[in-house]
Amino acid sequence: MNVLVIGAAGMVGRKLVERIAAEDGVLGGSIDHLWLVDVVTPPVPSALEGVATAAAMDLSAPDSAAKIAGLRADLIIHLAAIVSGEAEADFEKGYRINLDGTRALFEAIRLEGQKEPYCPRLVFASSVAVFGAPFPEQIGDEFFTTPLTSYGTQKAISELLLSDYSRRGFFEGIGIRLPTICIRPGTPNKAASGFFSNILREPLAGQEAVLPVDENVRHWFASPRSAVGFFIHAAQLDLSNVGPRRNLTMPGLSALIGEEIEALRRVAGEKAVKLIRRERDPVIAGIVAGWPTNFDAARAAALGFKAETSFDEIIRIHIDDELGGKV
Amino acid sequence: MNVLVIGAAGMVGRKLVERIAAEDGVLGGSIDHLWLVDVVTPPVPSALEGVATAAAMDLSAPDSAAKIAGLRADLIIHLAAIVSGEAEADFEKGYRINLDGTRALFEAIRLEGQKEPYCPRLVFASSVAVFGAPFPEQIGDEFFTTPLTSYGTQKAISELLLSDYSRRGFFEGIGIRLPTICIRPGTPNKAASGFFSNILREPLAGQEAVLPVDENVRHWFASPRSAVGFFIHAAQLDLSNVGPRRNLTMPGLSALIGEEIEALRRVAGEKAVKLIRRERDPVIAGIVAGWPTNFDAARAAALGFKAETSFDEIIRIHIDDELGGKV
Repeated sequence: MNVLVIGAAGMVGRKLVERIAAEDGVLGGSIDHLWLVDVVTPPVPSALEGVATAAAMDLSAPDSAAKIAGLRADLIIHLAAIVSGEAEADFEKGYRINLDGTRALFEAIRLEGQKEPYCPRLVFASSVAVFGAPFPEQIGDEFFTTPLTSYGTQKAISELLLSDYSRRGFFEGIGIRLPTICIRPGTPNKAASGFFSNILREPLAGQEAVLPVDENVRHWFASPRSAVGFFIHAAQLDLSNVGPRRNLTMPGLSALIGEEIEALRRVAGEKAVKLIRRERDPVIAGIVAGWPTNFDAARAAALGFKAETSFDEIIRIHIDDELGGKV
Repeated sequence: MNVLVIGAAGMVGRKLVERIAAEDGVLGGSIDHLWLVDVVTPPVPSALEGVATAAAMDLSAPDSAAKIAGLRADLIIHLAAIVSGEAEADFEKGYRINLDGTRALFEAIRLEGQKEPYCPRLVFASSVAVFGAPFPEQIGDEFFTTPLTSYGTQKAISELLLSDYSRRGFFEGIGIRLPTICIRPGTPNKAASGFFSNILREPLAGQEAVLPVDENVRHWFASPRSAVGFFIHAAQLDLSNVGPRRNLTMPGLSALIGEEIEALRRVAGEKAVKLIRRERDPVIAGIVAGWPTNFDAARAAALGFKAETSFDEIIRIHIDDELGGKV
């Protein structure tokens, strides 16, 4: 099978490609060719040399989408986006990348299919940012999408396009609403959600981290490993069990910041917890107050998507995958 | 105040303009200028001569939106769209008119505001077609939008843009999800919902009409007079009571086809009912089966929007407004 990953240089994209490199047949068949695309040239794991081609490309630039669709990949995983903070700060860039780029891809696939029949599986990375407060205690699968950010709006619009293009038979689309990924490895990005990871990752590495909100803030989490698992599962899902409602809230863990910290204490001890410095930031606290805190992701669970059920597990995955198994 | 009506040659647009002509101050102030725009030149009621200007313009053509936004109207009512049947038959035209045209308008207003501060009230005609089956018995205000047509998708996307542009302060948007308008005057259009009106309008005029579905089909209705009332109410609504969720399902009447026919019998007698010819059309029956049947439009009702509560009332409004008060 031929596979195309758009946004392959991002955190989840890189981990997905590493998993494909490490586990032959993980996508349900052996890979004939793997194309990796992003605004910067994505890294190619050594195990994929000769099989993978990496290229730098801006999906929203003229002809980019047509070139990508012209590859006629069997499976397209579309993770490319600018993050919420940047999409809020730069209105035009957010719409250009997150909406126009995605729509250009969908249109290019449709037009490619007019030349010669073509109907790839397309897995799209959406986000729980499609929801906006106020929320019920648990957000069910039929709750409406009233985003309170331009990023969430762009994702919600892309979801609607994905469903309509799928219904029309232009591709087999499935949208994956990611929880906040925790623990994000590496350095902070522009996302306002960064502290959820920082307060674990930095103390685990012996560094101080700032907590800008109260401990009673509740949020919705999954590990990077689960995120990769969602895309792999979606790539092979029997869509006859999904029907026309193609966008699924992924399972996750609903937890308080306080529970995050308790798990850190259990896994890494009091010394790690003491590295968290409380410094309230009313701007970040205000943004976070508009975010969803808890879901009943019943449909995704019934379709076999899986995530962590405790913060201890989320921390141990980080220790295994990023710290060589040792704190 | 300066007012712009886009889609002023359509059925609801014309009736709205007639009401503005007949009732001075109905929009909350006297009209300095009224611009009427549509793909064909809209009619100007004689009472508005000297006040109204009519022009033919395609919103999706280059520069059209910029010209319209350059008028700097205080109130913009945007009703322009191609109907569901046409948007389903012609994928590209539907997206061009119903999505790109609307987005071009929103963008042009935003850019106009960058030249000199500008934040008009913008009332947008959406539709219950944003919803797709299966449905709960009554669709509440927080039910998700999973349209089963390209038309519904285009409306749902426009709603998301309207909310985000409003949140950003580019205009004061409010989206009005219209029920099926009944009784539509005049001749059938390409909408698959035409028969809901035909089976009343034609018999009231002594003509035969075809009923292509069963009598136990339930649907959601409001009169043209109510539709006009929704736009007039939305134009003056205190948006501080609305908050960021700017798209409202309008109140309506949930009724069976059988109840429609019983009302016809009460108002116009057995002779009229006998003009309904039952001729099942499985294609239309299939389309209608995917449509919503009943809503709890609590938010709109609490905000003062009003519709009919019986089919007798809907029929009498048609007799008053279209037939000079006589059957």
